[in-house]
Amino acid sequence: MGADGPKAVVLLSGGLDSATLLALARAQGFACHALSFDYGQRHRVELTAAARVAERLGAVEHRTVKLDIGWIGGSALTDASIPVPRVPGGGIPITYVPARNTVFLAIALGWAEVLDARAIFIGVNALDYSGYPDCRPAYIEAFQQLANLATRAGVEGRPIRIHAPLIEMQKAEIIQAGARLGVDYALTTSCYDPDVRGRACGRCDSCRLRAAGFAAAGVPDPTVYVTGGGGE
Amino acid sequence: MGADGPKAVVLLSGGLDSATLLALARAQGFACHALSFDYGQRHRVELTAAARVAERLGAVEHRTVKLDIGWIGGSALTDASIPVPRVPGGGIPITYVPARNTVFLAIALGWAEVLDARAIFIGVNALDYSGYPDCRPAYIEAFQQLANLATRAGVEGRPIRIHAPLIEMQKAEIIQAGARLGVDYALTTSCYDPDVRGRACGRCDSCRLRAAGFAAAGVPDPTVYVTGGGGE
Repeated sequence: MGADGPKAVVLLSGGLDSATLLALARAQGFACHALSFDYGQRHRVELTAAARVAERLGAVEHRTVKLDIGWIGGSALTDASIPVPRVPGGGIPITYVPARNTVFLAIALGWAEVLDARAIFIGVNALDYSGYPDCRPAYIEAFQQLANLATRAGVEGRPIRIHAPLIEMQKAEIIQAGARLGVDYALTTSCYDPDVRGRACGRCDSCRLRAAGFAAAGVPDPTVYVTGGGGE
Repeated sequence: MGADGPKAVVLLSGGLDSATLLALARAQGFACHALSFDYGQRHRVELTAAARVAERLGAVEHRTVKLDIGWIGGSALTDASIPVPRVPGGGIPITYVPARNTVFLAIALGWAEVLDARAIFIGVNALDYSGYPDCRPAYIEAFQQLANLATRAGVEGRPIRIHAPLIEMQKAEIIQAGARLGVDYALTTSCYDPDVRGRACGRCDSCRLRAAGFAAAGVPDPTVYVTGGGGE
């Protein structure tokens, strides 16, 4: 299982959304080449989660690219001097990593081209993270245009399509879709600020969205929180 | 010198084109933050050249990002099992690195955003390298659209402009422009397949274009070739 069907590159963070994404791509019959990034994120436990998810959900292979972009700074996710906020703020969150999805998609595009894959799956979501500019439909459409022009495949009439199936889904809908496909969310991690044992803080934006999503979906939340947290 | 004026991120390879690019950006008054990539290219001597060029031409700073994308393969520039061609072929050259400029521009975009720079300079050229899809004006325009949508700066009305001033220039024109600005081309390297001492092969596409450019420009060629080469 896993190696049949057309090829796709699937961006896999180890979180809830991208695990669902991989399950959806598999359910559509794609042979999935999973791609993760070690970009100096403080929540690096997600890389271990990504490896577990890739294996359990039947990816053909899983690559983790080390990206030396932490020095760029500017985000609470990569800069230890910027605290992860406990309460949602207005505008673009401080957890936004400058141009992150553009870098991820660019590398996925290069790999897709060499694999001769015609599909890239990315788990961006415009509803929960409306403050991130690179999670909006217009952004994905612009990257699609770029992909058609940027690649040998595109020039030669074999365009690579960017799939963002979660982009308009509520968190609860994402969880329900994954649960129907048998995703074990205990394999995933969402917390921006886990403890050394990988337990979720229960307080950051990402923990709050995850906990509320499980509650709204009516699906049991398998997340292990640090004592005193608990996602509301 | 170098720290005055509006900020720009300048993609610097250590080659003839990007040295000219940096000189043009400096001449336009930009405070230039030079960015190079160590992406497993076999012609890594260019990274040493990039550092020399950045210092000599007055960049404010120079960063080299290590990019773990050599495993993607698919190019003679990163895959030691694919020989660098000695004669120009038709179509897209085997020296094309999949999605390379998209990855470079994406990282430049993130850095520009954090620096609050409104300009990115890239030395792509559509004439000499017409076989590379990501060197064409339509590609640069598509990346400009993406940059406006991808970034906090773009969303907040401070768009980051992609400057590609060499895109329609002949190699001889580039050399003449740089020579007028006092660029010492002995600092630069263009060869795809230099020897261990960094001497140019004189035979690859890039060497041939460079040698022909100096000849057409009427500018002395300072390139040191391995014995028996000589750029035609």
